[in-house]
Amino acid sequence: MRNQRGLLIVLSGPSGVGKGTVRKELFSQPDTNYEYSISMTTRSPREGEVDEVDYFFKTRSEFEELIQLDQLLEYAEFVGNYYGTPLAYVNKMRDAGRDVFLEIEVQGAAQVRSKVPDGLFIFLAPPSLSELEERLVGRGTESDEVIASRLQAARQELEMMNLYDYVVENDEVENACDRINAIIIAEHCKRERVEKRYFDMLKENV
Amino acid sequence: MRNQRGLLIVLSGPSGVGKGTVRKELFSQPDTNYEYSISMTTRSPREGEVDEVDYFFKTRSEFEELIQLDQLLEYAEFVGNYYGTPLAYVNKMRDAGRDVFLEIEVQGAAQVRSKVPDGLFIFLAPPSLSELEERLVGRGTESDEVIASRLQAARQELEMMNLYDYVVENDEVENACDRINAIIIAEHCKRERVEKRYFDMLKENV
Repeated sequence: MRNQRGLLIVLSGPSGVGKGTVRKELFSQPDTNYEYSISMTTRSPREGEVDEVDYFFKTRSEFEELIQLDQLLEYAEFVGNYYGTPLAYVNKMRDAGRDVFLEIEVQGAAQVRSKVPDGLFIFLAPPSLSELEERLVGRGTESDEVIASRLQAARQELEMMNLYDYVVENDEVENACDRINAIIIAEHCKRERVEKRYFDMLKENV
Repeated sequence: MRNQRGLLIVLSGPSGVGKGTVRKELFSQPDTNYEYSISMTTRSPREGEVDEVDYFFKTRSEFEELIQLDQLLEYAEFVGNYYGTPLAYVNKMRDAGRDVFLEIEVQGAAQVRSKVPDGLFIFLAPPSLSELEERLVGRGTESDEVIASRLQAARQELEMMNLYDYVVENDEVENACDRINAIIIAEHCKRERVEKRYFDMLKENV
Protein backbone atom coordinates (compact mmCIF):
# COMPACT_ATOMS: atom_id res chain seq x y z
CA MET A 1 0.00 0.00 0.00
CA ARG A 2 2.43 2.66 1.10
CA ASN A 3 5.62 2.84 -0.95
CA GLN A 4 7.83 4.22 1.79
CA ARG A 5 10.99 2.56 3.03
CA GLY A 6 10.26 1.08 6.44
CA LEU A 7 11.18 3.02 9.56
CA LEU A 8 13.75 1.93 12.10
CA ILE A 9 12.13 2.52 15.49
CA VAL A 10 14.44 2.41 18.49
CA LEU A 11 12.89 2.23 21.96
CA SER A 12 15.30 2.81 24.81
CA GLY A 13 15.59 4.52 28.18
CA PRO A 14 17.12 4.12 31.62
CA SER A 15 17.22 0.62 33.05
CA GLY A 16 14.17 -0.24 35.11
CA VAL A 17 11.90 2.12 33.18
CA GLY A 18 9.85 -0.72 31.69
CA LYS A 19 11.11 -1.00 28.10
CA GLY A 20 10.55 -4.77 27.95
CA THR A 21 7.02 -4.53 29.33
CA VAL A 22 6.05 -1.83 26.84
CA ARG A 23 7.60 -3.76 23.95
CA LYS A 24 5.75 -6.95 24.91
CA GLU A 25 2.45 -5.06 25.16
CA LEU A 26 3.01 -3.46 21.73
CA PHE A 27 3.70 -6.82 20.11
CA SER A 28 0.69 -8.43 21.78
CA GLN A 29 -1.65 -5.94 20.08
CA PRO A 30 -3.39 -7.47 17.05
CA ASP A 31 -2.96 -4.45 14.76
CA THR A 32 0.75 -3.96 15.37
CA ASN A 33 2.35 -4.19 11.95
CA TYR A 34 6.02 -3.74 12.56
CA GLU A 35 8.75 -6.32 12.83
CA TYR A 36 10.62 -6.99 16.01
CA SER A 37 14.32 -7.02 15.22
CA ILE A 38 15.86 -10.43 15.94
CA SER A 39 19.14 -10.20 17.86
CA MET A 40 22.33 -12.06 17.10
CA THR A 41 24.23 -13.83 19.87
CA THR A 42 27.15 -16.16 20.52
CA ARG A 43 25.49 -17.82 23.51
CA SER A 44 24.19 -21.36 23.04
CA PRO A 45 20.53 -21.88 22.16
CA ARG A 46 18.41 -22.84 25.15
CA GLU A 47 15.90 -25.68 25.08
CA GLY A 48 13.25 -24.82 22.48
CA GLU A 49 14.99 -21.77 21.01
CA VAL A 50 15.04 -21.69 17.21
CA ASP A 51 17.76 -20.12 15.06
CA GLU A 52 16.51 -17.12 13.04
CA VAL A 53 13.35 -16.96 15.20
CA ASP A 54 14.53 -16.35 18.76
CA TYR A 55 18.05 -15.29 17.84
CA PHE A 56 20.54 -15.56 15.05
CA PHE A 57 22.97 -17.96 16.71
CA LYS A 58 26.60 -17.47 15.65
CA THR A 59 30.01 -18.69 16.71
CA ARG A 60 32.37 -16.25 18.32
CA SER A 61 34.54 -16.03 15.20
CA GLU A 62 31.51 -15.46 12.96
CA PHE A 63 30.32 -12.67 15.25
CA GLU A 64 33.75 -11.07 15.37
CA GLU A 65 34.00 -11.17 11.59
CA LEU A 66 30.67 -9.30 11.36
CA ILE A 67 32.01 -6.71 13.81
CA GLN A 68 35.07 -6.26 11.57
CA LEU A 69 32.84 -5.88 8.50
CA ASP A 70 30.71 -3.24 10.30
CA GLN A 71 27.68 -5.47 9.89
CA LEU A 72 26.26 -4.86 13.37
CA LEU A 73 24.10 -1.85 14.15
CA GLU A 74 25.13 -2.18 17.77
CA TYR A 75 26.65 -4.86 19.96
CA ALA A 76 27.86 -5.52 23.48
CA GLU A 77 29.42 -8.32 25.47
CA PHE A 78 27.68 -9.68 28.58
CA VAL A 79 29.12 -12.44 30.75
CA GLY A 80 31.35 -13.74 27.98
CA ASN A 81 28.83 -13.67 25.14
CA TYR A 82 28.21 -11.18 22.37
CA TYR A 83 24.73 -9.79 21.69
CA GLY A 84 23.96 -7.45 18.82
CA THR A 85 21.65 -6.27 16.05
CA PRO A 86 22.50 -7.48 12.54
CA LEU A 87 22.45 -4.69 9.96
CA ALA A 88 21.56 -6.94 6.99
CA TYR A 89 18.31 -8.16 8.58
CA VAL A 90 17.20 -4.64 9.49
CA ASN A 91 17.95 -3.32 6.00
CA LYS A 92 16.20 -6.22 4.28
CA MET A 93 13.01 -5.53 6.27
CA ARG A 94 13.16 -1.78 5.71
CA ASP A 95 13.77 -2.17 1.98
CA ALA A 96 10.66 -4.35 1.86
CA GLY A 97 8.71 -1.43 3.37
CA ARG A 98 8.40 -2.98 6.84
CA ASP A 99 8.95 -0.93 9.98
CA VAL A 100 11.53 -2.53 12.27
CA PHE A 101 11.35 -2.15 16.04
CA LEU A 102 14.40 -2.35 18.31
CA GLU A 103 14.25 -2.34 22.10
CA ILE A 104 17.76 -1.80 23.44
CA GLU A 105 19.84 -0.28 26.21
CA VAL A 106 20.91 3.36 25.95
CA GLN A 107 24.51 2.45 25.08
CA GLY A 108 23.29 0.41 22.10
CA ALA A 109 20.90 3.20 21.07
CA ALA A 110 23.81 5.64 20.94
CA GLN A 111 25.65 3.27 18.57
CA VAL A 112 22.57 2.97 16.33
CA ARG A 113 22.04 6.74 16.28
CA SER A 114 25.49 7.26 14.79
CA LYS A 115 24.87 4.66 12.07
CA VAL A 116 21.22 5.33 11.18
CA PRO A 117 20.59 9.07 11.14
CA ASP A 118 17.04 8.59 9.80
CA GLY A 119 16.11 6.24 12.64
CA LEU A 120 13.27 7.14 14.97
CA PHE A 121 14.55 7.31 18.54
CA ILE A 122 12.05 7.09 21.39
CA PHE A 123 13.15 7.60 24.99
CA LEU A 124 10.92 5.87 27.50
CA ALA A 125 10.94 8.17 30.51
CA PRO A 126 10.50 7.38 34.20
CA PRO A 127 6.84 6.80 35.09
CA SER A 128 5.74 10.37 35.63
CA LEU A 129 6.84 13.88 36.25
CA SER A 130 5.16 13.91 39.62
CA GLU A 131 7.07 10.78 40.57
CA LEU A 132 10.32 12.46 39.54
CA GLU A 133 9.38 15.46 41.64
CA GLU A 134 8.61 13.23 44.65
CA ARG A 135 11.92 11.44 44.23
CA LEU A 136 13.73 14.75 44.24
CA VAL A 137 11.94 16.51 47.04
CA GLY A 138 10.93 13.50 49.09
CA ARG A 139 8.86 14.15 52.17
CA GLY A 140 10.79 17.28 53.04
CA THR A 141 12.74 15.37 55.68
CA GLU A 142 15.70 14.29 53.53
CA SER A 143 19.19 15.65 54.09
CA ASP A 144 20.76 17.97 51.52
CA GLU A 145 23.08 15.10 50.67
CA VAL A 146 20.21 12.76 49.77
CA ILE A 147 18.52 15.43 47.65
CA ALA A 148 21.81 16.23 45.92
CA SER A 149 22.41 12.60 45.02
CA ARG A 150 18.84 12.31 43.67
CA LEU A 151 19.33 15.42 41.58
CA GLN A 152 22.55 13.95 40.22
CA ALA A 153 20.88 10.65 39.30
CA ALA A 154 17.94 12.41 37.67
CA ARG A 155 20.25 14.66 35.71
CA GLN A 156 22.21 11.68 34.36
CA GLU A 157 19.00 9.96 33.26
CA LEU A 158 17.71 13.09 31.59
CA GLU A 159 20.94 13.89 29.80
CA MET A 160 20.50 10.63 27.93
CA MET A 161 17.38 12.12 26.32
CA ASN A 162 19.54 14.34 24.16
CA LEU A 163 20.01 11.81 21.38
CA TYR A 164 16.30 11.06 21.08
CA ASP A 165 13.55 12.44 18.86
CA TYR A 166 10.67 11.71 21.23
CA VAL A 167 10.15 11.25 24.94
CA VAL A 168 7.32 8.95 26.02
CA GLU A 169 6.33 8.93 29.67
CA ASN A 170 5.66 5.44 30.93
CA ASP A 171 2.93 6.44 33.36
CA GLU A 172 0.73 3.49 32.30
CA VAL A 173 1.81 0.79 29.86
CA GLU A 174 -1.29 1.31 27.68
CA ASN A 175 -0.75 5.07 27.52
CA ALA A 176 2.89 4.60 26.59
CA CYS A 177 1.89 2.16 23.81
CA ASP A 178 -0.77 4.57 22.48
CA ARG A 179 1.83 7.33 22.31
CA ILE A 180 4.37 5.12 20.55
CA ASN A 181 1.76 4.02 18.00
CA ALA A 182 0.77 7.68 17.43
CA ILE A 183 4.41 8.61 16.87
CA ILE A 184 4.80 5.90 14.23
CA ILE A 185 1.62 6.99 12.40
CA ALA A 186 2.75 10.63 12.53
CA GLU A 187 6.22 9.79 11.21
CA HIS A 188 4.68 8.10 8.19
CA CYS A 189 2.83 11.37 7.50
CA LYS A 190 6.02 13.49 7.59
CA ARG A 191 6.16 15.59 4.46
CA GLU A 192 9.72 14.50 3.55
CA ARG A 193 8.59 10.87 3.52
CA VAL A 194 5.33 11.40 1.63
CA GLU A 195 6.11 13.97 -1.04
CA LYS A 196 8.63 11.72 -2.79
CA ARG A 197 5.88 9.29 -3.75
CA TYR A 198 3.81 12.08 -5.26
CA PHE A 199 6.72 13.59 -7.14
CA ASP A 200 7.86 10.18 -8.40
CA MET A 201 4.35 9.67 -9.77
CA LEU A 202 4.48 13.00 -11.58
CA LYS A 203 7.85 12.10 -13.06
CA GLU A 204 6.56 8.77 -14.34
CA ASN A 205 3.82 10.59 -16.23
CA VAL A 206 5.98 13.25 -17.88
CA MET B 1 -1.56 18.30 33.64
CA ARG B 2 1.04 18.93 31.00
CA ASN B 3 2.99 22.15 31.35
CA GLN B 4 3.72 22.70 27.68
CA ARG B 5 2.73 25.78 25.76
CA GLY B 6 -0.20 24.86 23.52
CA LEU B 7 0.45 24.00 19.89
CA LEU B 8 -0.79 25.99 16.94
CA ILE B 9 -2.17 23.41 14.52
CA VAL B 10 -2.83 24.63 10.99
CA LEU B 11 -4.88 22.42 8.67
CA SER B 12 -4.85 23.47 5.05
CA GLY B 13 -4.68 22.07 1.52
CA PRO B 14 -6.01 22.62 -1.99
CA SER B 15 -9.60 23.81 -2.29
CA GLY B 16 -12.07 20.97 -2.59
CA VAL B 17 -9.91 18.54 -0.64
CA GLY B 18 -12.34 18.37 2.29
CA LYS B 19 -10.73 20.57 4.96
CA GLY B 20 -14.09 21.72 6.36
CA THR B 21 -15.48 18.19 6.56
CA VAL B 22 -12.41 16.89 8.38
CA ARG B 23 -12.40 19.84 10.78
CA LYS B 24 -16.11 19.32 11.60
CA GLU B 25 -15.53 15.62 12.21
CA LEU B 26 -12.57 16.37 14.51
CA PHE B 27 -14.60 18.82 16.58
CA SER B 28 -17.56 16.44 16.81
CA GLN B 29 -15.38 13.83 18.57
CA PRO B 30 -15.96 13.82 22.33
CA ASP B 31 -12.27 13.54 23.30
CA THR B 32 -11.02 16.37 21.10
CA ASN B 33 -9.33 18.77 23.45
CA TYR B 34 -8.12 21.60 21.32
CA GLU B 35 -9.66 24.98 20.67
CA TYR B 36 -11.02 25.98 17.33
CA SER B 37 -9.64 29.40 16.52
CA ILE B 38 -12.42 31.98 16.20
CA SER B 39 -12.06 34.17 13.13
CA MET B 40 -12.41 37.93 12.98
CA THR B 41 -14.55 39.56 10.31
CA THR B 42 -15.98 42.88 9.18
CA ARG B 43 -19.13 41.34 7.75
CA SER B 44 -22.38 41.84 9.69
CA PRO B 45 -23.52 39.13 12.10
CA ARG B 46 -26.21 36.88 10.66
CA GLU B 47 -29.36 35.93 12.56
CA GLY B 48 -28.28 34.00 15.66
CA GLU B 49 -24.54 34.61 15.37
CA VAL B 50 -22.89 35.66 18.60
CA ASP B 51 -19.85 37.92 18.90
CA GLU B 52 -16.78 36.13 20.32
CA VAL B 53 -18.45 32.75 19.71
CA ASP B 54 -19.05 32.52 15.97
CA TYR B 55 -16.75 35.39 15.02
CA PHE B 56 -15.10 38.41 16.49
CA PHE B 57 -17.16 41.08 14.72
CA LYS B 58 -15.25 44.29 14.00
CA THR B 59 -15.73 47.45 12.02
CA ARG B 60 -13.62 47.99 8.95
CA SER B 61 -11.51 50.62 10.69
CA GLU B 62 -10.96 48.42 13.74
CA PHE B 63 -9.84 45.58 11.47
CA GLU B 64 -7.51 47.82 9.50
CA GLU B 65 -5.97 49.12 12.70
CA LEU B 66 -5.20 45.53 13.75
CA ILE B 67 -3.61 44.91 10.35
CA GLN B 68 -1.40 47.96 10.90
CA LEU B 69 -0.45 46.73 14.36
CA ASP B 70 0.46 43.28 12.94
CA GLN B 71 -2.18 41.74 15.19
CA LEU B 72 -3.51 39.29 12.59
CA LEU B 73 -1.87 35.95 11.96
CA GLU B 74 -3.37 35.98 8.50
CA TYR B 75 -6.16 37.80 6.72
CA ALA B 76 -7.82 38.16 3.35
CA GLU B 77 -10.63 40.15 1.77
CA PHE B 78 -13.59 38.37 0.20
CA VAL B 79 -16.46 40.21 -1.53
CA GLY B 80 -15.77 43.42 0.30
CA ASN B 81 -15.27 42.00 3.80
CA TYR B 82 -12.15 41.18 5.77
CA TYR B 83 -11.66 37.77 7.40
CA GLY B 84 -8.68 36.92 9.54
CA THR B 85 -7.17 35.17 12.57
CA PRO B 86 -6.52 37.38 15.60
CA LEU B 87 -3.07 36.87 17.07
CA ALA B 88 -4.03 37.87 20.63
CA TYR B 89 -6.70 35.16 20.93
CA VAL B 90 -4.37 32.45 19.63
CA ASN B 91 -1.55 33.49 21.97
CA LYS B 92 -3.87 33.68 24.97
CA MET B 93 -5.03 30.10 24.39
CA ARG B 94 -1.51 28.78 23.76
CA ASP B 95 -0.13 30.50 26.85
CA ALA B 96 -2.86 28.77 28.86
CA GLY B 97 -1.53 25.43 27.53
CA ARG B 98 -4.41 24.88 25.09
CA ASP B 99 -3.77 23.64 21.55
CA VAL B 100 -5.35 25.91 18.95
CA PHE B 101 -6.65 24.57 15.67
CA LEU B 102 -6.87 26.66 12.49
CA GLU B 103 -8.50 25.49 9.27
CA ILE B 104 -7.55 27.91 6.51
CA GLU B 105 -6.77 28.32 2.82
CA VAL B 106 -3.23 27.76 1.59
CA GLN B 107 -2.61 31.49 1.09
CA GLY B 108 -3.47 32.09 4.76
CA ALA B 109 -1.34 29.15 5.87
CA ALA B 110 1.68 30.65 4.11
CA GLN B 111 1.15 33.89 6.06
CA VAL B 112 0.93 31.98 9.36
CA ARG B 113 4.02 29.92 8.58
CA SER B 114 6.11 33.08 8.28
CA LYS B 115 4.81 34.41 11.62
CA VAL B 116 4.70 31.22 13.72
CA PRO B 117 7.76 29.10 12.98
CA ASP B 118 6.87 26.61 15.73
CA GLY B 119 3.39 26.03 14.31
CA LEU B 120 2.37 22.57 13.21
CA PHE B 121 1.41 22.63 9.54
CA ILE B 122 -0.70 19.79 8.15
CA PHE B 123 -1.42 19.54 4.44
CA LEU B 124 -4.61 17.66 3.65
CA ALA B 125 -3.87 15.89 0.37
CA PRO B 126 -6.20 14.81 -2.43
CA PRO B 127 -8.15 11.68 -1.53
CA SER B 128 -5.61 9.06 -2.55
CA LEU B 129 -2.52 8.41 -4.56
CA SER B 130 -4.39 6.05 -6.84
CA GLU B 131 -6.93 8.78 -7.51
CA LEU B 132 -4.12 11.17 -8.41
CA GLU B 133 -2.68 8.56 -10.75
CA GLU B 134 -6.08 8.04 -12.39
CA ARG B 135 -6.50 11.75 -12.84
CA LEU B 136 -3.13 11.96 -14.55
CA VAL B 137 -3.29 8.91 -16.77
CA GLY B 138 -7.05 8.81 -17.27
CA ARG B 139 -8.41 5.98 -19.38
CA GLY B 140 -5.48 6.04 -21.76
CA THR B 141 -7.60 7.83 -24.34
CA GLU B 142 -6.76 11.41 -23.37
CA SER B 143 -4.78 13.72 -25.62
CA ASP B 144 -1.25 14.75 -24.67
CA GLU B 145 -2.67 18.19 -24.05
CA VAL B 146 -5.16 16.95 -21.46
CA ILE B 147 -2.51 14.89 -19.66
CA ALA B 148 -0.11 17.85 -19.70
CA SER B 149 -2.70 20.15 -18.14
CA ARG B 150 -3.46 17.54 -15.44
CA LEU B 151 0.23 17.18 -14.69
CA GLN B 152 0.50 20.94 -14.41
CA ALA B 153 -2.45 21.13 -12.00
CA ALA B 154 -1.13 18.27 -9.87
CA ARG B 155 2.31 19.84 -9.75
CA GLN B 156 0.89 23.15 -8.53
CA GLU B 157 -1.11 21.39 -5.79
CA LEU B 158 1.89 19.38 -4.69
CA GLU B 159 4.29 22.28 -4.68
CA MET B 160 2.13 23.81 -1.96
CA MET B 161 3.16 20.90 0.28
CA ASN B 162 6.60 22.41 0.65
CA LEU B 163 5.69 24.66 3.57
CA TYR B 164 4.10 21.87 5.57
CA ASP B 165 5.40 19.50 8.23
CA TYR B 166 2.96 16.69 7.58
CA VAL B 167 0.87 15.42 4.69
CA VAL B 168 -2.39 13.64 5.55
CA GLU B 169 -4.20 11.80 2.79
CA ASN B 170 -7.94 12.35 2.94
CA ASP B 171 -8.89 8.89 1.69
CA GLU B 172 -11.62 8.55 4.34
CA VAL B 173 -12.62 11.31 6.77
CA GLU B 174 -12.18 8.99 9.79
CA ASN B 175 -8.71 7.92 8.66
CA ALA B 176 -7.68 11.52 8.09
CA CYS B 177 -8.92 12.45 11.60
CA ASP B 178 -7.06 9.49 13.17
CA ARG B 179 -3.85 10.62 11.49
CA ILE B 180 -4.30 14.23 12.59
CA ASN B 181 -4.93 13.13 16.18
CA ALA B 182 -1.83 10.90 16.07
CA ILE B 183 0.27 13.80 14.78
CA ILE B 184 -0.87 16.01 17.67
CA ILE B 185 -0.10 13.31 20.26
CA ALA B 186 3.33 12.73 18.68
CA GLU B 187 4.16 16.43 18.62
CA HIS B 188 3.49 16.65 22.36
CA CYS B 189 6.09 13.87 22.82
CA LYS B 190 8.79 15.69 20.82
CA ARG B 191 11.94 15.78 22.90
CA GLU B 192 12.41 19.55 22.52
CA ARG B 193 8.94 20.12 24.01
CA VAL B 194 9.22 17.63 26.85
CA GLU B 195 12.77 17.95 28.15
CA LYS B 196 12.26 21.55 29.20
CA ARG B 197 9.74 20.47 31.84
CA TYR B 198 12.19 17.95 33.26
CA PHE B 199 15.09 20.36 33.29
CA ASP B 200 12.99 23.14 34.81
CA MET B 201 12.07 20.74 37.60
CA LEU B 202 15.72 19.95 38.24
CA LYS B 203 16.52 23.66 38.35
CA GLU B 204 13.77 24.33 40.87
CA ASN B 205 15.31 21.74 43.17
CA VAL B 206 18.90 22.96 42.99
